[in-house]
Amino acid sequence: MLPFARLTVIGLGLIGSSVARAVKANMPSVRITGHDADPLVRARAVELGICDDVTDTAGASVMDADLVILCVPVGAMGAVAADFASDLPADAIVSDVGSCKQSVADALAAVLPNAMIIPAHPVAGTEKSGPDAGFATLFKGRWCILTPPENAPEAAVERLRNFWQRLGADVEIMDARHHDMVLAVTSHLPHLIAYTIVGTADDLEGVTQSEVIKYSAGGFRDFTRIAASDPVMWRDVFLSNKDAVLEMLQRFSEDLSALQRAIRYGKGDELEALFSRTRDIRRSIVEQGQDDDAPDFGRKH
Amino acid sequence: MLPFARLTVIGLGLIGSSVARAVKANMPSVRITGHDADPLVRARAVELGICDDVTDTAGASVMDADLVILCVPVGAMGAVAADFASDLPADAIVSDVGSCKQSVADALAAVLPNAMIIPAHPVAGTEKSGPDAGFATLFKGRWCILTPPENAPEAAVERLRNFWQRLGADVEIMDARHHDMVLAVTSHLPHLIAYTIVGTADDLEGVTQSEVIKYSAGGFRDFTRIAASDPVMWRDVFLSNKDAVLEMLQRFSEDLSALQRAIRYGKGDELEALFSRTRDIRRSIVEQGQDDDAPDFGRKH
Repeated sequence: MLPFARLTVIGLGLIGSSVARAVKANMPSVRITGHDADPLVRARAVELGICDDVTDTAGASVMDADLVILCVPVGAMGAVAADFASDLPADAIVSDVGSCKQSVADALAAVLPNAMIIPAHPVAGTEKSGPDAGFATLFKGRWCILTPPENAPEAAVERLRNFWQRLGADVEIMDARHHDMVLAVTSHLPHLIAYTIVGTADDLEGVTQSEVIKYSAGGFRDFTRIAASDPVMWRDVFLSNKDAVLEMLQRFSEDLSALQRAIRYGKGDELEALFSRTRDIRRSIVEQGQDDDAPDFGRKH
Repeated sequence: MLPFARLTVIGLGLIGSSVARAVKANMPSVRITGHDADPLVRARAVELGICDDVTDTAGASVMDADLVILCVPVGAMGAVAADFASDLPADAIVSDVGSCKQSVADALAAVLPNAMIIPAHPVAGTEKSGPDAGFATLFKGRWCILTPPENAPEAAVERLRNFWQRLGADVEIMDARHHDMVLAVTSHLPHLIAYTIVGTADDLEGVTQSEVIKYSAGGFRDFTRIAASDPVMWRDVFLSNKDAVLEMLQRFSEDLSALQRAIRYGKGDELEALFSRTRDIRRSIVEQGQDDDAPDFGRKH
């Protein structure tokens, strides 16, 4: 017994098109309707055949849905939901895939006061964007965090859990504010730092951009991957999860200042102590299947 | 005509054992003598058969060498060279693989005043350490930077260039101080930041270590790879290239403060402008063969 029969995916980029592909692969009888604000993306989605139907308006896409998943930048969630609000069936569950959860919950509740809203965040992705970048196995072995509001019916939460499990994800339930704090450190701060250092390297006058590129295998290239992620999506993440990001950034800056001081005053013991401790976290991540053990991410040598 | 006939490798960890393996694979007639200060590493190197001979002292290892390559942490270069100074043949070239070049040049010149010293830095590696971590193709398609002192004989520089090219590397000649500035941004600062953020995440009280590990696929796990690199090697890098690292760190901190301010005051345009610019650098790195184009570093999904 499938948890949903008629899925609508709004936003057909990397994540939305991956959801559609994964549903097609794992629940082929589910009818998938797609919509994207960009006509070029809609046309490409039709060519790729990742949805059963692609509609020109958000309203038309939700008309008979029992699950609507918003896969748009978090800053666009409220406007998109307002757009289809009058067409939404009363018993449909509305969910999303946004990287911040409290701001999305607030935005959706404001424009869909009577809808059953269960925000979600599959912690998965790549640095690529657009409908061609998606693939059916993106969520396999990754965590999907649901942040149901307190009054959410248990049965609805379980249907959404079942849905994501069928796409290969492990599901966790979490308070929205706690989610935003956890992801600020495991995702938002890393992206912010990667964007910063790539920008810093690009602005140097004593070192050319060509040199930065040539010698990037010394570590820098690792940062360029996540600094190649979708600019609008990430702009919205930082604006929407401002408090948690600023809090984590403050802690990071303090720790960086301490290391700066250790370097300035030649305190090798402090450096070595930190550098030894950080190895253990890598080991745990590999042991828990959240990364491969292959040296250098398994890059070809 | 091979550039060298009798190679000595001192320090048989990731890089030293890779040099030995690569020479064995590409110049099988070269006689390789190895030494490591750690008796367990020496024993393991004998078991692995990566050298023709492994000696118990540094002095014994260099006796008939025409090329000696020091593959030890940069802070240990001077002491190791002092240890074999009296056994070094007059016509041998002494080189190294250290990540900072001016400090190594100074340290070696101080204890080997009459030797022909040509420092080198193959910009290659993985996060793994020890003799088992090495492999013959580590240097293939990577850059190796030579920083010969002004009075270095051209023929000696050419022999060393030829040597690294035979291991698959592209060779560049650079001034030692400029090398240290370039690598401060492409390698040292990325490592420092990765170590810092992994430490920051480990110290949080509102987010558990288990949560950091579970949701690391959001970006954090990328940083844990280089934060798992050898602690002693990296301690020495930061102490030895102090000025350039502090200079880059200062610029990075300023840029990070500017982004922090943009987030605090909701300046989405500034964020988006930076996030769009950084994509181009990734594209250039991929185009120039310094990283794969496979999404997510080609991780399995």
